[in-house]
Amino acid sequence: MNSVFSILTDGTVVSPRGYSAAGVAAGLKRNNQPDCALLVSASPATAAAAFTDSAVAAAPVLYGRDLMSSGQVLRAVFVNSGNANACTGDQGWRDTLATAGAVARQLRIEPNEVLVSSTGRIGVPLPMDKIIAGVGKAVRGLSPAGGEAAAAAIMTTDTRPKTAAASLEIDGCQVTVGGMAKGAGMIAPKLVAASARQATMLAYVTTDAKVSGAFLEECLCRSLDLSFNRITVDGDGSTNDTFLALANGQAGNHELTAEHPQAAEFAAAFNWLAGYLARAIVLDGEGATRFVELRVHGAATVAEARQCAEAVANSVLCKTAWFGGDPNWGRILAAAGCSGVRLQPDRLALNIQGVPMVRNGVDAGTPLFEQEKAVATDELKIDLALGAGDQEFTVWTCDLSYEYVRINADYRT
Amino acid sequence: MNSVFSILTDGTVVSPRGYSAAGVAAGLKRNNQPDCALLVSASPATAAAAFTDSAVAAAPVLYGRDLMSSGQVLRAVFVNSGNANACTGDQGWRDTLATAGAVARQLRIEPNEVLVSSTGRIGVPLPMDKIIAGVGKAVRGLSPAGGEAAAAAIMTTDTRPKTAAASLEIDGCQVTVGGMAKGAGMIAPKLVAASARQATMLAYVTTDAKVSGAFLEECLCRSLDLSFNRITVDGDGSTNDTFLALANGQAGNHELTAEHPQAAEFAAAFNWLAGYLARAIVLDGEGATRFVELRVHGAATVAEARQCAEAVANSVLCKTAWFGGDPNWGRILAAAGCSGVRLQPDRLALNIQGVPMVRNGVDAGTPLFEQEKAVATDELKIDLALGAGDQEFTVWTCDLSYEYVRINADYRT
Repeated sequence: MNSVFSILTDGTVVSPRGYSAAGVAAGLKRNNQPDCALLVSASPATAAAAFTDSAVAAAPVLYGRDLMSSGQVLRAVFVNSGNANACTGDQGWRDTLATAGAVARQLRIEPNEVLVSSTGRIGVPLPMDKIIAGVGKAVRGLSPAGGEAAAAAIMTTDTRPKTAAASLEIDGCQVTVGGMAKGAGMIAPKLVAASARQATMLAYVTTDAKVSGAFLEECLCRSLDLSFNRITVDGDGSTNDTFLALANGQAGNHELTAEHPQAAEFAAAFNWLAGYLARAIVLDGEGATRFVELRVHGAATVAEARQCAEAVANSVLCKTAWFGGDPNWGRILAAAGCSGVRLQPDRLALNIQGVPMVRNGVDAGTPLFEQEKAVATDELKIDLALGAGDQEFTVWTCDLSYEYVRINADYRT
Repeated sequence: MNSVFSILTDGTVVSPRGYSAAGVAAGLKRNNQPDCALLVSASPATAAAAFTDSAVAAAPVLYGRDLMSSGQVLRAVFVNSGNANACTGDQGWRDTLATAGAVARQLRIEPNEVLVSSTGRIGVPLPMDKIIAGVGKAVRGLSPAGGEAAAAAIMTTDTRPKTAAASLEIDGCQVTVGGMAKGAGMIAPKLVAASARQATMLAYVTTDAKVSGAFLEECLCRSLDLSFNRITVDGDGSTNDTFLALANGQAGNHELTAEHPQAAEFAAAFNWLAGYLARAIVLDGEGATRFVELRVHGAATVAEARQCAEAVANSVLCKTAWFGGDPNWGRILAAAGCSGVRLQPDRLALNIQGVPMVRNGVDAGTPLFEQEKAVATDELKIDLALGAGDQEFTVWTCDLSYEYVRINADYRT
């Protein structure tokens, strides 16, 4: 099936009908940077979500898991940056409830129609006076043009907002999916459906399509391995990862379910959007100078392909070699060899940018200057064959630079 | 039982009786740096070894595994640095055999009495002309005072040789254990007895005690979790890790077995030596500015304590925070939370240098300036309690600095 959606220029989370958003500064970040975002649907929206599976999940994640298990209709999402409200105990839980309550009161909706997300430093109680003021300011700032402002307000170490949208026709109606995401470090999300595993990444997808709860959840779950669960900046998990999808039905299509004749078309647009946002996170990875698409194939199982790909992607020796533009394929094979997966040492094959580096487990004979030419690019495609089966998995990652160390040795200041 | 051994000043691998060693330059490294080491026992020595369990083990490791399964008596160990002889296929295997053969011929011993180790760049065939010349030069250079030279010749990115020795009395005879090790990067060994998991670290322990093969293997295996298998510099596995123990019996004691009344005393000296060498590797970790001893306790199982400790120790966010002197305990809890082990979020407790950072899962209330004072030290002791049981595991690791990135972005040049 061909993709039949079109990508909207300057698309955001408010590109679909019936959504408004705001991004305001409430003093959680320094220098009057925007730090509170609000996203509102004019009508109740079917919701599906995936969260970190960290055993130390932040209060807003615990709240979100509860919310999503008790019902799937939401009206609003409030997000603060600058403070993760994680490892804050009972106080953190009460603060999340109070935040949801304040949003509900001001929007005249129910608290259980409000999802709350937080991102930032761990272990510091939320300054609730600032949060409550931020809620008021955000409600007053709501605008059908507020998508870019909201995307900017959820950033932490991100260098740019991440937004996109796409449109397609379903049942003769124009349907739009829009989204925003944040995240640059502590990125190795393993999200599991609300019924999600890790990293501080937040992503929100909106659509004006009418979608059944079950099919929206199916779309979200199926997109994970093609998007947020295939990215890793630093291999580090977070307490706050959240991926939420909202569908408010304002496009006028017949309800999308798995049986709808255009279900696959909608899913394709959804997958593109989730993939775009996930890739945008890695492209903006802390200190990243190269994007790396690493495909491990010839694995005995998909799980082993993934395990091997993640081991290589998270190897600091591989990441620093990529930063240095060093075609040091020995580090890739060493990481694969210690990843605990089945492989045939004498059948290993490795290509970088299509250039043979390894054949039958040994040097492929490509002259060094050609190896070096292959890695001299901003976006590396690496292809590793294990010779142990026919399963594969692809991860998106980046290099590890001096700038990564600078950012993270000095996050607080 | 008190330790009854004494540490020898300037002890090396030739401190025990009956050993000689050499370290010479054969042109594998630049600038005429020493790159071939030879260690010889004057009489046949009982041997025990552990190797990497990498699925991409180097030729000398494959050879060593074979050797150690067919017999346990060795006379010599030849080590080259500058080239790992890994991912070199059949040629690599033949080169290892040829190296062992050359050593055997020149020493008039059997090839199967010679263990060979290699460390350095992966994927480049050994320059056998230089190796053979190196063997000759090393044999001619053998000396009962050659311990320091041998330890220098096995170094790669190490900044200093690592050697030690200790003595104790057994059956009225003076028994000495000596050792050398190399390794600074690609260090996260998981050694499994010859009958080992990963990293390029090499370690050799000699003793003049008479020790049964079974008890020597027991000593070696039991020392692993207290030494090489508790260290990680970068979490990266290698193709070449080797830990070998030799016992030539020249001290004149009754054979040490598990039943010998002084078995525990010998084991204590052995453990101290292995631990000393392992710690020396982390202290010399690539670019390391801080040594970190991380103890995870209150775990449901030892395996979970270890899994959690390794997750924190290998977290680049934790490592860069330690480099920055940032008491960012949230990153430690985040890494623990995503490590996949059982823990009680509201019972987590964390101390750094004995200073409470976290109690009951939340900030312990220690003022920030006291937190910062606690982490301002070259050797950090971190203590994390999971509240899920009574098992524990301790790892030794280091921070991740700009220098680590420099070394590894530019290893070849």
